[in-house]
Amino acid sequence: MDQVRVIEVKQSVFADNDRRAAQLRQELKERGVFLLNLMSSPGAGKTTTLKRTVELLKDEIKIGVMEADIDSDVDARTMAAAGVRSIQLHTGGMCHLDADMTRQGLDELLAESGVELAILENVGNLVCPAEFDTGAVKNAAILSVPEGDDKPLKYPLMFQVCDVVLINKIDVAPYFDFDLERCTEYIRMRNPEAKVIPICAKTGEGVEEWAKWLREQVQAWKS
Amino acid sequence: MDQVRVIEVKQSVFADNDRRAAQLRQELKERGVFLLNLMSSPGAGKTTTLKRTVELLKDEIKIGVMEADIDSDVDARTMAAAGVRSIQLHTGGMCHLDADMTRQGLDELLAESGVELAILENVGNLVCPAEFDTGAVKNAAILSVPEGDDKPLKYPLMFQVCDVVLINKIDVAPYFDFDLERCTEYIRMRNPEAKVIPICAKTGEGVEEWAKWLREQVQAWKS
Repeated sequence: MDQVRVIEVKQSVFADNDRRAAQLRQELKERGVFLLNLMSSPGAGKTTTLKRTVELLKDEIKIGVMEADIDSDVDARTMAAAGVRSIQLHTGGMCHLDADMTRQGLDELLAESGVELAILENVGNLVCPAEFDTGAVKNAAILSVPEGDDKPLKYPLMFQVCDVVLINKIDVAPYFDFDLERCTEYIRMRNPEAKVIPICAKTGEGVEEWAKWLREQVQAWKS
Repeated sequence: MDQVRVIEVKQSVFADNDRRAAQLRQELKERGVFLLNLMSSPGAGKTTTLKRTVELLKDEIKIGVMEADIDSDVDARTMAAAGVRSIQLHTGGMCHLDADMTRQGLDELLAESGVELAILENVGNLVCPAEFDTGAVKNAAILSVPEGDDKPLKYPLMFQVCDVVLINKIDVAPYFDFDLERCTEYIRMRNPEAKVIPICAKTGEGVEEWAKWLREQVQAWKS
């Protein structure tokens, strides 16, 4: 796939995002499509993690990826090169995606594709995306070691709304003051139910456990 | 200073932020106060850079710091421990500061203090803070090596509005795919005038050059 499809998504004029998100989720349930919303700071490793995830799951699950960015189509090209159906969503400066913007992307992604697992790579931002239900079945956040272990204290909502937190770039932990135990404790303060998985997307360490979790979620949703 | 003053700032109901920011800047000019707006992703090293900056400049310039965060007062405590007047601004979930929110912080910071250089550490976010003029005389952004050299492509506005970009954590460059030359080129695509200074806030490398730039800006503003 050489050409990357770029969609300019626009924010809904409707204020009732929660209702529209719930409706989208219901429709996805009926169609047997699992939507994952993946969030993080800029540069925490969303795209690299997705590449690894796709490598592990693409032979058993049909995956499609929506790359949301304010500008550029770098990420959609990367994912297309990894061999999955991939579209780029341009938010026109918006700092997050809401349910209607996600629906615009899904309309394109799901057309004639048989996608079972749709992954939304949200805008790189630890603040705003957490405030908007996209209609996803599960929310995941990536926190990378260089960002520091205190982030769950400073960006509480992100960690409250996430079902799983991937601690990425653990290979560079020796070069940073990052205490995995303390970080996990901070995450649990925000969200006692959150699953925490340390990974290194670059080397693939820990990604198997994350892929296992995701596979189980997709299977549960489709059954 | 054991007690950290926490201010709950509220977004203005006024839509004309640009006019109010210009008015704030004019008032600061008349009072001889230089306001720096420091922005970055979460965990790029704003607070550590500020600590270093304060060490280098506090004997010659009276500095006050406003730490904006959604929650927690970790950063204001750190700065108070570094020996500068420091207040914490809580944004109540807001992802950025506007001119009126900044004014609320300044009213507190400047009261009876003789502060000449007020530094606003904005919310950790590469998107939204760039959209709101805070009334600052100059804008600075920190981009850290682990975030990747492609960030100016993905978050164009941040790099357009900044007068100076500090490339932080250059000590860990060997462990990441980060090309300083390419990154500088991307920044210049967004903003040909931007000054780019590589630093390592942890070790202090490069911070002298940044402090020199800031000292000159403060002097020029007061003259």
